[in-house]
Amino acid sequence: MSDAPVEAFEPPYYAVVFTTVRTDDQNGYRETNTRMEELVREVPGYLGMDHAQNPGGLGITVAYFRDVDALTQWRTNLEHRAAQQRGREHWYDTYTLHVAKVERSHGFKRS
Amino acid sequence: MSDAPVEAFEPPYYAVVFTTVRTDDQNGYRETNTRMEELVREVPGYLGMDHAQNPGGLGITVAYFRDVDALTQWRTNLEHRAAQQRGREHWYDTYTLHVAKVERSHGFKRS
Repeated sequence: MSDAPVEAFEPPYYAVVFTTVRTDDQNGYRETNTRMEELVREVPGYLGMDHAQNPGGLGITVAYFRDVDALTQWRTNLEHRAAQQRGREHWYDTYTLHVAKVERSHGFKRS
Repeated sequence: MSDAPVEAFEPPYYAVVFTTVRTDDQNGYRETNTRMEELVREVPGYLGMDHAQNPGGLGITVAYFRDVDALTQWRTNLEHRAAQQRGREHWYDTYTLHVAKVERSHGFKRS
């Protein structure tokens, strides 16, 4: 996740929007997050991810996938599922997940 | 945009993901952004918005709309279009826009 946003791909593809407010208990979060970033890159059809975080507040992660097969593979990954469980037990106060099929996209880069 | 994320609505609805890297020229940005937040709330079918910003880096705004009519009304709003133009001229180094139909959603709130 560099500072350049994920590009606007040719639709259709999928965007998974994960919006969180975290708890004060972040023990183990960073290591798990780093591992998840490694793991998702192994999913065929994974396209990239952007993340932004308000200091001490709301965070948004958007991951992009080519198709439903890629979504399914990531959603059912056992190590990912274990991490989600730990997230609900410890790290997240609130989250919402929106899985959405991109119908239109465009990008702008200052020349 | 409070610190509680926008809820997981009953699909279908739309998510508009707007990911930006800004320039050093932010003259007028804040006022225009505040005005756009007011204006979008007047769109019938507007559901809410989340924003997160890495200090000095990438920002992600996700706005949610009930249907295509709401998307169209917001996209074609003349004051919004003028703001987009100013954004390309001054405020944004890079952005990507992904307009996506939400197929699945869920929320979690610590009890």
